[in-house]
Amino acid sequence: MRIVVALGGNALLQRGQKPDAEVQRANVQVATGSLAALVAAGHELVVTHGNGPQVGLLALQSAADPSLSGPYPFDVLGAQTQGMIGYWLLQSLQNAMPTRQICALINQTLVSAADPAFRDPTKFVGPVYDEATAKGLASERGWTVKPDGVHWRRVVPSPKPLRVVETRLIRLLLQSGAIVVCAGGGGVPTIRDESGQLVGVEAVVDKDLTASVLAESLEADVLLLLTDVPRVQRGYETAAAAEIRNATPGELRRENFPAGSMGPKVEAVCRFVELTGDMAAIGALPDAAAILAGEAGTIVTPSGRYPMEGHEAA
Amino acid sequence: MRIVVALGGNALLQRGQKPDAEVQRANVQVATGSLAALVAAGHELVVTHGNGPQVGLLALQSAADPSLSGPYPFDVLGAQTQGMIGYWLLQSLQNAMPTRQICALINQTLVSAADPAFRDPTKFVGPVYDEATAKGLASERGWTVKPDGVHWRRVVPSPKPLRVVETRLIRLLLQSGAIVVCAGGGGVPTIRDESGQLVGVEAVVDKDLTASVLAESLEADVLLLLTDVPRVQRGYETAAAAEIRNATPGELRRENFPAGSMGPKVEAVCRFVELTGDMAAIGALPDAAAILAGEAGTIVTPSGRYPMEGHEAA
Repeated sequence: MRIVVALGGNALLQRGQKPDAEVQRANVQVATGSLAALVAAGHELVVTHGNGPQVGLLALQSAADPSLSGPYPFDVLGAQTQGMIGYWLLQSLQNAMPTRQICALINQTLVSAADPAFRDPTKFVGPVYDEATAKGLASERGWTVKPDGVHWRRVVPSPKPLRVVETRLIRLLLQSGAIVVCAGGGGVPTIRDESGQLVGVEAVVDKDLTASVLAESLEADVLLLLTDVPRVQRGYETAAAAEIRNATPGELRRENFPAGSMGPKVEAVCRFVELTGDMAAIGALPDAAAILAGEAGTIVTPSGRYPMEGHEAA
Repeated sequence: MRIVVALGGNALLQRGQKPDAEVQRANVQVATGSLAALVAAGHELVVTHGNGPQVGLLALQSAADPSLSGPYPFDVLGAQTQGMIGYWLLQSLQNAMPTRQICALINQTLVSAADPAFRDPTKFVGPVYDEATAKGLASERGWTVKPDGVHWRRVVPSPKPLRVVETRLIRLLLQSGAIVVCAGGGGVPTIRDESGQLVGVEAVVDKDLTASVLAESLEADVLLLLTDVPRVQRGYETAAAAEIRNATPGELRRENFPAGSMGPKVEAVCRFVELTGDMAAIGALPDAAAILAGEAGTIVTPSGRYPMEGHEAA
């Protein structure tokens, strides 16, 4: 089967860990074990990954650099993280699978210049400030800032991903037998301007939604979102909380999930299943192979049933 | 013809320019015009590039980051620059050639753990310090520091590139008709340890030497090193300085070139011509098409003659 995997932020950096290079490299090596198991089972593999903490770190470094007229924009910073995280995954996957070809690509993700997210940025990035400092930075640097609880933070647009520009090359590489690392951080957000030129924009793209778009374009059999929880929960953080083992997109859409975390993952899997009729799943990184076997994770299909049962019984 | 081009640092950032993102993006757009002319003439194109000022900037940012236990190592920083510069080239080349597939890859470059450069680092990186500060940093961070004129600076090893790990994928992409951006900054320096695992190392690789190795592996017809001077000079900075229009590798090797700048370029072209019998050239970025036509640059061949004259006369 052709599988598109999205690695959550915790695959690279867990809460409370220092964002040191060696810490992230070690985490990537652990993640690689789960991914190599999928390849060993004979599957084609596309690996995408988040970049939230990493792009936040580079944004602060860039903003603090006295040699620059101003901080680098988020398209450029996102590309830096694609290089860095792509390198860690490339090297670690190559070491886990010495006889395979591994390819790590820089990608642009097309978004619409007319996306409403550009008029109302909502994605918090970077550190918290008091109101006066935040408003000062906003007027100095052209930022949009909004209250986040008792603090203020910068917000950037998070437009919907429409297409990974380099999809045709990713397909070619897969067909050649390569394992492809791509669309890191959701891909570098890019619009087409009125003359048709690609232009990077100050925005971030949700990596799970990009993985869904990419999986659809590549006619993937499975979209697998790997994170730090074993299953999606219904009634999250209530007394009636219960793990969801199987669901249809409609069943999931009737639940309410937190906008910042599980919401985009649920949207990503529902979108893929609704458009393709194939299977998507959300679960824990170490369970990747078990999720594919229907033994772990939250499995989403048009019928709500694990689609390969029949094969096993036969 | 299949052409491997190495873009010098000035293609991205000229002396005296601020290392702002917009400055570099604009420079890349100018460089792209020269590269697109080669593709328009029907050639296959592999684009490599330097990263000296960029990796230096990120190294300082990383060293100044209070949230890290220590600065990121040069393999990781080099990978960040591959992402950033690769993105600028990818987007700019795609805009110049909307109907072509452009692929920007993260690459590792194999070097030998036994390379003498690891015992005697010589490549200056980062800012200058006074002796006491330099020696303090050396003991604190495990750096090697050396005098550079009246100042002291950090030095890192610059081992010889032996092979671009992802060469097979670059060939596949070329054969599919794609234009490939790769081996940025000479590729991420990587050794194989005693268990055969790939491990990134604290080193920098000369991008022109990597371009030479890659051109040989890909059976390129031409290796083109594009920089900010129109031709190599014999007797550089002497009263007898004279431009070299054509040369054999032997003729070039009998001259003395500055170790930090023209030396590695001359070594790179000589190596390629000696190993393959094909043409290499050094010249100015805007002259790329003219160099290929034998009308500009310093052209290096086994005979010392421009190899396509006969074709033109016929």
